[in-house]
Amino acid sequence: MIVLGIDPGITNLGLGVVEQRGQRYRMLHGQVVQTAHGQPAPERVGTLYRAVYEAAQLYRPQAIAVEEQFFYRQNELAYKVGWAMGAVFLVADQMSIPVYGYGPPQVKQALVGNGRADKQQIAYMVRALLGLPSLPKPTHLADALAIALAHCFHQPLCANKPLR
Amino acid sequence: MIVLGIDPGITNLGLGVVEQRGQRYRMLHGQVVQTAHGQPAPERVGTLYRAVYEAAQLYRPQAIAVEEQFFYRQNELAYKVGWAMGAVFLVADQMSIPVYGYGPPQVKQALVGNGRADKQQIAYMVRALLGLPSLPKPTHLADALAIALAHCFHQPLCANKPLR
Repeated sequence: MIVLGIDPGITNLGLGVVEQRGQRYRMLHGQVVQTAHGQPAPERVGTLYRAVYEAAQLYRPQAIAVEEQFFYRQNELAYKVGWAMGAVFLVADQMSIPVYGYGPPQVKQALVGNGRADKQQIAYMVRALLGLPSLPKPTHLADALAIALAHCFHQPLCANKPLR
Repeated sequence: MIVLGIDPGITNLGLGVVEQRGQRYRMLHGQVVQTAHGQPAPERVGTLYRAVYEAAQLYRPQAIAVEEQFFYRQNELAYKVGWAMGAVFLVADQMSIPVYGYGPPQVKQALVGNGRADKQQIAYMVRALLGLPSLPKPTHLADALAIALAHCFHQPLCANKPLR
């Protein structure tokens, strides 16, 4: 199974592609797509869309897994994360890939068995599971890979429902 | 000038196309695009994208004007309006149309000279300005037309900056 993990954001969008074969996992692709605050919003969303589309075309994932925060400090942040999600959903629609959402505690629970684990523990576990030569950086990439792995671990028994 | 006005939402997206010639305005197109709560999110965003894309292809607007709330009662609402905006921004990016945001008080001020006017007053003014045979319904369509008209009124002296 190939899973495209996304840590959504309008300024930094983490994108990691993970392949699972039985109990073995490997990273096929990882990047953080960046856009600038001063850029017009259509360009920013277009940049994210093209990056997600290209990765999805190249690796043909069976699922897209995204991090879903349920509480944002600010409305505006939630709104702008939504812009990025719009781009992700459009790729998913055009390529008929289901999108699954996981909250941060679910991701942490899946990876290290503790819903309140810290970022460092998650990064260590991502490194170990994917056999990476060093800790995945930056944080947005580590998070995207963690989300993809969390989706693999939830399969096939208790996957979240696709987002609606 | 042709302006595509959008009242953004994931369940109901109001879409109105207004043409301005000097001091005369007319409605070229109006619809409310609907998606169902139970539908997968990618399909919902895809439906909105296709409707906005088709209208933009057909009428070739010089600008897209959208309503921007600055406070939402709930984070989740802001997040999901963001999904819809992602679809609008992608159309704008693909067709190189600038997107301008107007807050509800700005729209009301522009149309009836009072930032706290009620929905009914706005609907009356939209009807009068566009020469419609009856009040525009439903509300999402009236709002979309009002936003397009507000953008016309702000031109050329005091248009908002394109969204970033």
